[in-house]
Amino acid sequence: MSWNSFGRVFRFTTWGESHGPAIGAVVDGCPPGLPLAEADIQPWLDRRRPGTSRFTTQRREPDEVRILSGVFEGRTTGTPISLMIENVDQRSKDYGEVAKAYRPGHADYAYDAKYGFRDYRGGGRSSARETASRVAAGAVARAVIPGVRIRAWVEAIGGDTIDPARFDDAAIDANPFFCPDPVAAERWEGLVDAARKAGSSLGAVVACEATGVPAGWGAPLYAKLDSELAAACMSINAVKGIEIGDGFAAAALSGEANADPMRPGAGGPEFLANHAGGIAGGIATGQPIRLRVAFKPTSSILTPVPTITRDGAATEIATRGRHDPCVGIRGVPVVEAMVALVLADQALLHRAQCG
Amino acid sequence: MSWNSFGRVFRFTTWGESHGPAIGAVVDGCPPGLPLAEADIQPWLDRRRPGTSRFTTQRREPDEVRILSGVFEGRTTGTPISLMIENVDQRSKDYGEVAKAYRPGHADYAYDAKYGFRDYRGGGRSSARETASRVAAGAVARAVIPGVRIRAWVEAIGGDTIDPARFDDAAIDANPFFCPDPVAAERWEGLVDAARKAGSSLGAVVACEATGVPAGWGAPLYAKLDSELAAACMSINAVKGIEIGDGFAAAALSGEANADPMRPGAGGPEFLANHAGGIAGGIATGQPIRLRVAFKPTSSILTPVPTITRDGAATEIATRGRHDPCVGIRGVPVVEAMVALVLADQALLHRAQCG
Amino acid sequence: MSWNSFGRVFRFTTWGESHGPAIGAVVDGCPPGLPLAEADIQPWLDRRRPGTSRFTTQRREPDEVRILSGVFEGRTTGTPISLMIENVDQRSKDYGEVAKAYRPGHADYAYDAKYGFRDYRGGGRSSARETASRVAAGAVARAVIPGVRIRAWVEAIGGDTIDPARFDDAAIDANPFFCPDPVAAERWEGLVDAARKAGSSLGAVVACEATGVPAGWGAPLYAKLDSELAAACMSINAVKGIEIGDGFAAAALSGEANADPMRPGAGGPEFLANHAGGIAGGIATGQPIRLRVAFKPTSSILTPVPTITRDGAATEIATRGRHDPCVGIRGVPVVEAMVALVLADQALLHRAQCG
Amino acid sequence: MSWNSFGRVFRFTTWGESHGPAIGAVVDGCPPGLPLAEADIQPWLDRRRPGTSRFTTQRREPDEVRILSGVFEGRTTGTPISLMIENVDQRSKDYGEVAKAYRPGHADYAYDAKYGFRDYRGGGRSSARETASRVAAGAVARAVIPGVRIRAWVEAIGGDTIDPARFDDAAIDANPFFCPDPVAAERWEGLVDAARKAGSSLGAVVACEATGVPAGWGAPLYAKLDSELAAACMSINAVKGIEIGDGFAAAALSGEANADPMRPGAGGPEFLANHAGGIAGGIATGQPIRLRVAFKPTSSILTPVPTITRDGAATEIATRGRHDPCVGIRGVPVVEAMVALVLADQALLHRAQCG
Repeated sequence: MSWNSFGRVFRFTTWGESHGPAIGAVVDGCPPGLPLAEADIQPWLDRRRPGTSRFTTQRREPDEVRILSGVFEGRTTGTPISLMIENVDQRSKDYGEVAKAYRPGHADYAYDAKYGFRDYRGGGRSSARETASRVAAGAVARAVIPGVRIRAWVEAIGGDTIDPARFDDAAIDANPFFCPDPVAAERWEGLVDAARKAGSSLGAVVACEATGVPAGWGAPLYAKLDSELAAACMSINAVKGIEIGDGFAAAALSGEANADPMRPGAGGPEFLANHAGGIAGGIATGQPIRLRVAFKPTSSILTPVPTITRDGAATEIATRGRHDPCVGIRGVPVVEAMVALVLADQALLHRAQCG
Repeated sequence: MSWNSFGRVFRFTTWGESHGPAIGAVVDGCPPGLPLAEADIQPWLDRRRPGTSRFTTQRREPDEVRILSGVFEGRTTGTPISLMIENVDQRSKDYGEVAKAYRPGHADYAYDAKYGFRDYRGGGRSSARETASRVAAGAVARAVIPGVRIRAWVEAIGGDTIDPARFDDAAIDANPFFCPDPVAAERWEGLVDAARKAGSSLGAVVACEATGVPAGWGAPLYAKLDSELAAACMSINAVKGIEIGDGFAAAALSGEANADPMRPGAGGPEFLANHAGGIAGGIATGQPIRLRVAFKPTSSILTPVPTITRDGAATEIATRGRHDPCVGIRGVPVVEAMVALVLADQALLHRAQCG
Repeated sequence: MSWNSFGRVFRFTTWGESHGPAIGAVVDGCPPGLPLAEADIQPWLDRRRPGTSRFTTQRREPDEVRILSGVFEGRTTGTPISLMIENVDQRSKDYGEVAKAYRPGHADYAYDAKYGFRDYRGGGRSSARETASRVAAGAVARAVIPGVRIRAWVEAIGGDTIDPARFDDAAIDANPFFCPDPVAAERWEGLVDAARKAGSSLGAVVACEATGVPAGWGAPLYAKLDSELAAACMSINAVKGIEIGDGFAAAALSGEANADPMRPGAGGPEFLANHAGGIAGGIATGQPIRLRVAFKPTSSILTPVPTITRDGAATEIATRGRHDPCVGIRGVPVVEAMVALVLADQALLHRAQCG
Repeated sequence: MSWNSFGRVFRFTTWGESHGPAIGAVVDGCPPGLPLAEADIQPWLDRRRPGTSRFTTQRREPDEVRILSGVFEGRTTGTPISLMIENVDQRSKDYGEVAKAYRPGHADYAYDAKYGFRDYRGGGRSSARETASRVAAGAVARAVIPGVRIRAWVEAIGGDTIDPARFDDAAIDANPFFCPDPVAAERWEGLVDAARKAGSSLGAVVACEATGVPAGWGAPLYAKLDSELAAACMSINAVKGIEIGDGFAAAALSGEANADPMRPGAGGPEFLANHAGGIAGGIATGQPIRLRVAFKPTSSILTPVPTITRDGAATEIATRGRHDPCVGIRGVPVVEAMVALVLADQALLHRAQCG
């Protein structure tokens, strides 16, 4: 199955290829009566828009979203919300090379193995361009859970990690890296510039925190909040790892060191630690939900890499053209969107069963 | 929603609590005509059975599975396969303490926050006992994909990692830790014994490899193979992290270092590396699928931890009684089962769309 | 796909064959805290139990239900409710004939065409015995929507229809036909007796009314209340038709004759007619929901019917043994159960989206 | 839940309102490599296009479909196919009356009861305009099952039924009523004209036959072919009844009269009757699949009908403006589309489980 939908009762379906006329999302199950306009969605799209700095792809896309249905007199009607973003800057370059040979690390070979052929123009459906649809849908999700604040940032690029002591929320949007540590942001300028100029690329770690999630959202087993978040984030292009709370670090701890003690607090327990990342038994505890996502380096690099042609002959390929030297950077608004989409869905699921 | 089902066309639903009369799974969508008997399922259950060594909980459960439907004359009929395992050793202890106070790290508080009350006997539905149902269902999944070999092991306990140079597949089942490194296995005896005697617990990392997965299984976006595996593994009790291929390590690499070059091979490409863990663009490349799963230390420890009562009063709790000092150990057959269940589902989904 | 689950957030999955050790259902998504015991389910099972009169199959099944999970201290916990009914009276007869030849009107040939072989004992999975699981699940559904009253009855047998002027709710459970018209009930005694003695069978029409369904339940398009009810009822063995409100009669009317005028009433509109059967645009209007279901005559008859063997040879088959002369009679509690299951699901879905 | 998707592995999601900028459908799960162009879809849309005769609404919509994704170099890629149809003729009339008062038989009151408010322009989401999206999606479904021929027609209008003896397939597209009986077609001209001029409306019965469906498609229980077809057809605006094969007539028959005897035929059994409508036990038998659908008369009539305002005051409403005097007529291509969509889905599901 192609399976281009995500969510259980608050669901979205995305469509569109990198070089088709447009991309879009249909958001279904949205509660009625929520104020929603294109102006509520556009700012989130602008955050991930390409071409805003020399550290992202130079493809120029205005990424202007249109709401085609589901909103009447400025409020959601409860019917499907169709969001469309036109593709404007599909550079008419020659894709002959990509059409004939497989770019290692890209989906080229896997798509051919699955479907027998592929839309090779800019990666077609496998292009990170699809994530614009997620960000648009995520903006709708935010409207469903106004009490929840979702904030992501880049924690490390190419192994160079921020200093938590210098964490400054205000800094995140003050540099082209969504970096909360101004000093690291300066280092990353040089780091990413060097990679870009060398036609190389870098991986990154994106962290995300959601506050205001009430205790009780989530489900015990196959819709565990951790499980849904893992599926959501792992579905983002180039993501290869996900941690909830301490994640892999917890595997090195003792039970004592990993405990999250509680004491009486105002309206519920006050937790003295949050190793669990705000989720126990798959269900939110009311603490901040914390997760970390690993983005591999962009697979498009100038250095020639051995590969094979569609006919199985040996060749080499160097991916020229426009690409993000560090795809993880623009992953920040995408991670936020996916977290918002999961939480909106869980909010409605919780209400369905527990009133 | 409770959501106790997993899978899209090959689906299973589990039911049962730790101290109820029985637990079980209903497997739906299984192809017809596959040879299946209780004897094909029992060995996998025996691998995760408690009480087999002093390094696991001392609860004695024979975990004998019964097939109640879906099999006729030794073959699957294509109708639902109902699997039941009776609970035998529900020790009639006093659960008063657990009923009244919340064990930090456990689902106690979260369940009460969600449902208003809970079956506190042995953790009820949140007990790792539920994973026996998964292992039984996983055995059916293995019958659906006979060409695939799925092998998991413990890679690290409490931060003590195996030496890859000493990796010996034959060793995995030759020690109580599913440890492929005989030397590490000896160290772990002391490590886990110490934790057990101290009433403490340890985290673990479980690695898994699936070979024989044909290129093409998987889906581009919201049923990405990575995404499905992440959801499946993250749904296991105590799991807080998942990596595909190099995972977080890839985030520190350059595009050159992370490339998986190809050259012509017999029947398709031969890959010169496998940083991607056998998945590109969410679709299998035909390489071995590799993933790593982080288990937090068992939350049940003897050291008293500050917590609150159901009434919100301050108290301390020390979890006496039977538990696994390192829940990750018995997580090995569970990870294998979840991987098998995902791959069987993807195999059928691939056939549905791509014939 | 086998697809043995029904429902969207309040879902049940049934398993089991006519002559296996047991049958059952797993009900998932049930809200927590609802009082539920086996004694709440048993009466509904007793209504459909075979062998209660000479007008039903003589198979003797106590149909005693066991709750294996999901209930603690007399209340639902929000986790899956596993219901099991043991098969007791699987008469050890020789099924050789049914194994070798296809009974026309039965699923025998279709199952072989789909699965390559089948459990032929008593029809295996295709036996109406499966409907006991639905009735058990339906009893749980009733607990979810206590304000809704669901009442079904037999409206016609073999073309002999009740006189609406004699409709007496109290009569429905006072005769073996669930017939609200005492005079018709007397006629039917002779009618069904004659069919039974002749080894023949009769079709029936079952009508159902649900009152207390609040305006707003349902959904505009692919989960229309009419659509869900149609799918639910059409999934019952031997059902070949479904009408909502006036159904086919409405197709012969003019818009004026089919109108359901409204006038102001206490708390909402008062409707002056109910041609629509309580549903407009797929959504409940608050009027009684009315539907009619057509059951074909039992396909098992003594008169030999031309058919073919598994090997494709011509033969004749006469279905001896125990069967219902009119399967529609015991369809009454099954229709009620399916309506309850749809309404419970829609109640939760409505709450999910509309709070 | 809004639930605007239909299908299990071959799924489509529709969006759009009667007076929004556009409507559309996203078709997901389509197999790759199928030839598909707008020219393959347009003819089916033209069949249901309004304004083609005086017997349908006079709204002028070109209904030109655009394929926005999922097709590359003339073939489906296996990724979602986004289909969009712009709304052109949204007459800027005053909707004040419909906004303030509820049209009996329409979804007006039910939508307000569910969502608290509604897009009242032309019925918004509840308008039959949505069915254009289904017809477009249905054209894709036809490409998935080229061996299946699906043919629907109008069997009766306002109670005036065709003479089966005069059934002429060629006649169906030779008159504005999709009527296979030329003599009835002439009668209907007068019938529908009279209704139209009187501002009244008529109900209709639509029949459909699908040939070339291989034995084995379908599923035993909750995805029974009858069940899926019932859900699909009942989801069409104004539909209130569905019959498979003899439907309600079978309820008046004896088992002997309802039997479908078999004898050996070329490649499988030859059936001597088809009371079952080509489905036994929920699974196709290989015979033609036959169903009948009841459309109520259009609720929009000129005769004033008592109703209430949004504020609950008594009033009367007469629905002026453009509407179909018999909505069942244009229901013909919609029924065909829904049957095609169900069969395409079942074809893939069968392949998934049974190879």
